[in-house]
Amino acid sequence: MTRKSTAAPTMKDVAAEAGVALGTVSKVFNNIPVGEEYRVRVLDAAHKLGYRVNSYARGLKTNKTNTAALVWPTLWHPFFASLADAIVGCLMKRGYRTIVTITNYDSQAEQRCIDLVRQNKVDGIIALTYNPDLDVDPDLPFVSIDRHFKAGVPCVASDNFSGGQLAAAKLIELGCRRLLFLRRGSGVAGEADKRRMGFEAACREKDLPFDSLYLLDEAGFDPFDAFLAEHIHGGVFDYDGIFCNTDRLCYEIQKRLEGLGIHVPADVQMIGYDGIRKFDSDELFCSTIIQPVDQMAQTAVDLLLDDDRSSLPALICLPVRYQPGGTTRDSV
Amino acid sequence: MTRKSTAAPTMKDVAAEAGVALGTVSKVFNNIPVGEEYRVRVLDAAHKLGYRVNSYARGLKTNKTNTAALVWPTLWHPFFASLADAIVGCLMKRGYRTIVTITNYDSQAEQRCIDLVRQNKVDGIIALTYNPDLDVDPDLPFVSIDRHFKAGVPCVASDNFSGGQLAAAKLIELGCRRLLFLRRGSGVAGEADKRRMGFEAACREKDLPFDSLYLLDEAGFDPFDAFLAEHIHGGVFDYDGIFCNTDRLCYEIQKRLEGLGIHVPADVQMIGYDGIRKFDSDELFCSTIIQPVDQMAQTAVDLLLDDDRSSLPALICLPVRYQPGGTTRDSV
Repeated sequence: MTRKSTAAPTMKDVAAEAGVALGTVSKVFNNIPVGEEYRVRVLDAAHKLGYRVNSYARGLKTNKTNTAALVWPTLWHPFFASLADAIVGCLMKRGYRTIVTITNYDSQAEQRCIDLVRQNKVDGIIALTYNPDLDVDPDLPFVSIDRHFKAGVPCVASDNFSGGQLAAAKLIELGCRRLLFLRRGSGVAGEADKRRMGFEAACREKDLPFDSLYLLDEAGFDPFDAFLAEHIHGGVFDYDGIFCNTDRLCYEIQKRLEGLGIHVPADVQMIGYDGIRKFDSDELFCSTIIQPVDQMAQTAVDLLLDDDRSSLPALICLPVRYQPGGTTRDSV
Repeated sequence: MTRKSTAAPTMKDVAAEAGVALGTVSKVFNNIPVGEEYRVRVLDAAHKLGYRVNSYARGLKTNKTNTAALVWPTLWHPFFASLADAIVGCLMKRGYRTIVTITNYDSQAEQRCIDLVRQNKVDGIIALTYNPDLDVDPDLPFVSIDRHFKAGVPCVASDNFSGGQLAAAKLIELGCRRLLFLRRGSGVAGEADKRRMGFEAACREKDLPFDSLYLLDEAGFDPFDAFLAEHIHGGVFDYDGIFCNTDRLCYEIQKRLEGLGIHVPADVQMIGYDGIRKFDSDELFCSTIIQPVDQMAQTAVDLLLDDDRSSLPALICLPVRYQPGGTTRDSV
């Protein structure tokens, strides 16, 4: 079938060009899942013919924009960047564009971001925020990462409690008997707090002594100096296993300890949390509990686009796994 | 002035609430630059009153959407992530939302991303692509990062040629006399090729011998093994200074050399390119030529939103700087 080059191409033309049924074309442009190969064929054919959906006009008509917004702290941190990457990818597969806004951890900016994206009528928001009191339309689909929000807003997180337990179990399995938990980061309550709870629960279950220390945010790094002074005797550190609430903290603490002549993993073994890799390579910064980034992204997007919003779960915790990365004795 | 709570708030109400002139409110919502403090006051007041601009309706009326699109290879790589972060931030300051699409370096996907964002009528596109033949509306503002595109599309890059010169000059200043350039990455021609050209030009100017080696992409990492076999004699490496075209390559080559008993920076000094930092901290992976991420973002956004598109520059190269980061002898 040839198309007159002067007439605007129709869905039918696209179907003929792609060699698929008309229904398949319709599905693709209405973001109903079809096989990836078919989706690509339809989009390539549409491009070749210059077929265009005017989403703006359709947006006014159907009140759908096929646009979601991400309200995100930063892309500088590799964990946030990789999760954003995965979410954008999942949304694209569903035919959704993603508006990305950056808050730099500022809760005022978070509200302004949400206002900004609402101006453009988005179909939903996925947010990782530090302001539990954000003002959001109750009827706008909203999925929160790591933080509990208000009723009706599902939260997607890694299984932080199990991750904490797993870190303790691994350190114990690797011979550690005097355990320490170190935490730094935002004081806003969230799912990540359960890393400590899981760790402590596992230590208690094994009847092993442990300590927990909260290091202040960024600049206020003082308590650790005093702590070290108190816990290093003749070059020997009181602890032989440390679980840090992030890989970044693990990496920094390792450097501090090495600087004091305490060797990792010979003298003390360390496990972090996140599973951050160097550049986009496979290499970890430390032995770590890996967050399932792809699965978290897929789950958040599925929840956001779920047509039935009457029975959404309040919290979905996705499975973590341990991987040695140089700071434990099981590292190659 | 009090507003009846039943009437929809107007721009006047917002001006009164914010304590600014009506013109200031108008400027903010039309994305004409005003002082950041005023912008925040207006947006906060608008939020408090529930003032909403319907960008969709306005988009149809004015043909402007206040939305830009980023067509980006990935957010997994820290350089791409930090540049995307900075661009999103600059666009937000101008009152623009950013649609982010991810191509995973796939030139077919790049075209699909561009088609996807065009469906939603964006005001412009900033792209970092590997397909020089992308089909883009000639009248849609388009800014390219690092790649030359077609006539009328300005390219923003760091000053790669100067960066290559600077790397050579630094290595020479630090005592290196047998220099090597290593490159890996896409074969698509782009501004980054000038890193090598600048490096070689500086070596020639000083009458110093040098070699250049192109390592294939990812899997095909073979030529370096043969090269090493040829150039290590009795544990001594033929070269005492290496410039790598990226920090990631520098980091990987350093590990390989250390594994062969060749120490960095004692036996061979190395400089990378990009200025990538560990996590979002200040720590570099290696001594490096730092790309001015914030300035590149600002320039790209200024070019994209420039009203006068009659005399856009073809290429803007922004100044780089050198910073020691452990792989040269000037590192602390």
